[in-house]
Order: sequence, then structure tokens, then C-alpha cells
Amino acid sequence: MNKKALQDLIREKRSFLCIGLDSDMEKLPPHLLEEEDPIFEFNKAIIQATAHLAVAYKPNLAFYECHGAEGWKSLEKTMAYIRSLDTPVFTIADAKRGDIGNSSRLYAKTFLDPEKLDFNSVTVNPYMGHDSVEPFLQYKDKFAIILALTSNPGAADFQLPTSHPSGNLEKLGIKIQSRRKLYEQVLIRSYDWGSEENIMFVAGATKAEMLKKIRNIIPYHFLLVPGVGAQGGSLEEVARYGMNHECGLLVNSSRGIIFASRGEDFHLKAQEKAQEVQQKMEKLLTEKGVISK
Amino acid sequence: MNKKALQDLIREKRSFLCIGLDSDMEKLPPHLLEEEDPIFEFNKAIIQATAHLAVAYKPNLAFYECHGAEGWKSLEKTMAYIRSLDTPVFTIADAKRGDIGNSSRLYAKTFLDPEKLDFNSVTVNPYMGHDSVEPFLQYKDKFAIILALTSNPGAADFQLPTSHPSGNLEKLGIKIQSRRKLYEQVLIRSYDWGSEENIMFVAGATKAEMLKKIRNIIPYHFLLVPGVGAQGGSLEEVARYGMNHECGLLVNSSRGIIFASRGEDFHLKAQEKAQEVQQKMEKLLTEKGVISK
Repeated sequence: MNKKALQDLIREKRSFLCIGLDSDMEKLPPHLLEEEDPIFEFNKAIIQATAHLAVAYKPNLAFYECHGAEGWKSLEKTMAYIRSLDTPVFTIADAKRGDIGNSSRLYAKTFLDPEKLDFNSVTVNPYMGHDSVEPFLQYKDKFAIILALTSNPGAADFQLPTSHPSGNLEKLGIKIQSRRKLYEQVLIRSYDWGSEENIMFVAGATKAEMLKKIRNIIPYHFLLVPGVGAQGGSLEEVARYGMNHECGLLVNSSRGIIFASRGEDFHLKAQEKAQEVQQKMEKLLTEKGVISK
Repeated sequence: MNKKALQDLIREKRSFLCIGLDSDMEKLPPHLLEEEDPIFEFNKAIIQATAHLAVAYKPNLAFYECHGAEGWKSLEKTMAYIRSLDTPVFTIADAKRGDIGNSSRLYAKTFLDPEKLDFNSVTVNPYMGHDSVEPFLQYKDKFAIILALTSNPGAADFQLPTSHPSGNLEKLGIKIQSRRKLYEQVLIRSYDWGSEENIMFVAGATKAEMLKKIRNIIPYHFLLVPGVGAQGGSLEEVARYGMNHECGLLVNSSRGIIFASRGEDFHLKAQEKAQEVQQKMEKLLTEKGVISK
């Protein structure tokens, strides 16, 4: 799915919702634990109930590989189920991979190759630089979603700090151009590695006003915004600072939707929650003129 | 295995060799492809032939998960085989994981939990900061091996650059304390997250003189040094700059050992190569006084 097709999907579904399939076995509705593959049954029911409301699904690999080979089977079956849907959706492997070129080439193959998991995109950690990201950019109409600014407390450790020039210099009236923050360096440097057609960025929503700075650097790339919902971000703030005239946003919600209920009606409660979010998104898309009423 | 036990193992085997199990299906000896699980059979033969020469084995996850559920089974079987050995070895999951706390908690469980893969350590990407690393530090006598300086070209993109103060200021005779490089920030900041008993660092060997700078910051932590052998690093240089009085090094070689031959004698050729490296290491350990002649 290329950028244009994703934009069309957003206009068609009047939504930029990504549902995170953080399918934690410990939080599944108890009645599903009797199934042979509880995680797959859970995902299938969630997807079936919400595919008209969501443009994207994002399985988080941590929740699958902790079950070893069985977990990988649940993931493979989930992807096969998504491909069988009538309505197209964009898929994100939230794997946060990145290694030396030869290893990244295999990670890219694992997640993006049509004969493997066949995701539309995969989240990639930029710490190891260009050759660790480049293999993910070689798949036509697929995307590397590069971590820029994440929504966790640890983002403050390396992504955000800049050096502070000596106070003495400022007293002398000498202005020093401040160094770019690491997440800005990532945006700027990786800008040249690919294009809006094969790169998106993760941009944390707990700092919505920072989306404005990010949009100054990359006005047209899609942003994957985590942390709206359970992690407390505000959808309105995200749209105000992060939305462009093509939308340019995928906003993720995981627990707030998929674990809305642990009863037998869990999929219906998830649908209700997803619809609430979709309706807010429709309003925001209309206000921005991305879609008409 | 705690730090002391690893040091004892180094003294006992007179080696600080880590063998990277980058078991690429495309490079396996052709006769193994007829086996039901070629990767496991390959690993088993390599380990059997080299376990008296190597103190550590490091399966690179990229080469396993590209085969989906089957690849995870090969990895599980490899780990079970290692546990069955008479001679103890240290195991490293070269997975380069790291995510928000809740996800990292599951990644840590996957690789370190005795009821899961039960590795002694796992490589961790520090980009997302403290809460992404912290769950890997909760397992007694196990280690997070944090990426500091990697050996690939992309290390120059974010790990190495520093801001350069304006030339004008230098002309004015005003000295500005230069900002720490990102890899130095990682060493310094993560120093407080744990101790030498649960943290090691990846320190790239293609820049051996940088090991001296690293040792100035962290004199006693173990360093995992990739890139000796096929990637061209010099073992002598690494030892000169990186070895401390307890050794403090695990030096990895992957392709140079495991793919020394594609014949039916591949394990024996691998043994020869491993022995060459072990003998060099024994000499270096003796010179440094870590072991006696």
C-alpha cells in the first residue's frame, strides 16, 4: 500500500485510527483461554468488529514472541486473517528492529516480504544509523517507521537532551546555536535516506506541542503517534499540531480499545470504543478539510 | 552466571571468545539441508566442536525469526542443547530489543526467564532510555548488553557526532566544553541504571582506539566486542585498549569461524579457526597477567 492508497483509505473510512494488537495473554477475556490459540481468536474478533473503523493494525511483537514458536504462529494467522478481509487495512509490525546491514536485511525480509509476514510497514530503531535502516526501504510500497520521539519517560534520556551552553557566554551576550536534539537529528538525517513513500516516523503524543517542531522539519511524512488513550495523550492536540492537509497521521490506541471489556462481548465493547475515537477523528478530518461533511 | 563465574570461565578456558551463531540458511553446508532442522544440526555440530574453546555463544535473532515459528524452534533447541553441555558457556541473545517498559518487560521475559529461552544476557538498544532497559536488569545473574558503540558504518550517523562550537568563539579565545558523543552519553547515563553485575556494553572493534575512551568511563564493565574477524578488527588492538585486569572482554567472531568450510568437515574447520583465535587470546591473557603460563 503506497502513501496515496493510505490517504484514500483514511478518507474512505473517515478515520486515522490504528489499533494496537498488544494481545497480552494475561488480559484476554477468560473464556478465550479455552481456545487452541487464544491470541489469534482474540485478534480475529477484535479485527472483525473494528475493521470498518480502523485504517491500521499494529501487532506489538513483544506480546507474540514471548510465547515462542506458538506466538509466531498466532501472528502469522493474524496476518493471514487480515489479508482475507474485504476492507483493506494498513499493517504495522511494531518490532523496533535495527542491526548491522546483513541482519537488518533479514529482519526486513521477515516482516515485509510478501512470502513472509507481509506487513505494510515495520517500526525501526535508528540508533545504529543508515545501514541499519536501509534494508527496510527496499520494499516497494512498504514503509520503515523510524523511531524519532517516543512517548515513554525514557525519551528524556537520549532523544531530548541538548547541551546547554555555558551561562557565562550568555551573560556575555554571545549566542550559541544550540545543538539539535537527537530526535531532530534522526528526522533530518534520515530525510535523505528515503522519501515520504518509504519512511514514516514515530512521534510521541504525550508531547503534542513537539509535533509542531516535527512538522516544521517533515511537513509531509506520515507520523505514527502512539500513546493516545491509555497513555493519556489528547487526540485534539495531536491533530492540531500534527495533522497536515492530507491527514499525515496514524494515531494508535491499544489497551483503551482492545481491553475495553473482558466479558464475552469484548469485541462489541472494543467496537464501541473504536467508534468513539473514529467519530472524533471524522470531526477533526472535516475541520481540517481533509474530508467533506 | 554472574560476573565472577564468567571470569572464572575465561581463566579456565584461557579464552574470551564468543562465537556468533549467525546461522544463515543460505550459507550452511549443503549436506545439512536434507536434515529436518538444518539450523539446529549446524549449531549443534559447531557448539560440540568448539565448546572447549569458546566462553560464549551468541545467536543473532535475525537469522532465526526470518524462518518464523520454525526458526524459533531451532533457537529453542539450540538453547536446550547448550544447557545439556558438560562445559558451562555464557549465552547472548543478540536481539537488540528495546521498547516502552511494558513491552520490554515481555522481551526480557522471552530471552532471560528460566522457563523461556533462558539466555544469560540479551543485547538491548538504548534509544528509548531508562524504562526501556530497566526490565532487562531484573534477572539475577543475568545481563543487559547495551549498545554503546557499534561496528557498522551507520555508527557515524548518531553515535559519534558532536556539535562543533562556532569557530568565531574559538577565535575569541572562548573555550566551550564539547558535548559528549551519544555513545558516551549512553555509557555515562546507564552507569547508574545498574552495575557491572547486570550491565555489559557493546563496543565496536573497528575503532579499537575508542575502547580506551570507553575504558576511561567504564573501567570494570564487561564489553562485548563485535567485528573481529570477518569485519576486520584486530584482536591485539582490542586487547591493548579494552582488556582490564579481569579480562573484561568478550570478543565475537561469527562468519570467520562458523563458515570456515561448507564441506562435511565444517565443524572441524570451525574448530581449527576457533583454536587459532583461542591461542591468540591465551597469549594476550597471559601477557596481561589475567592467567599464568
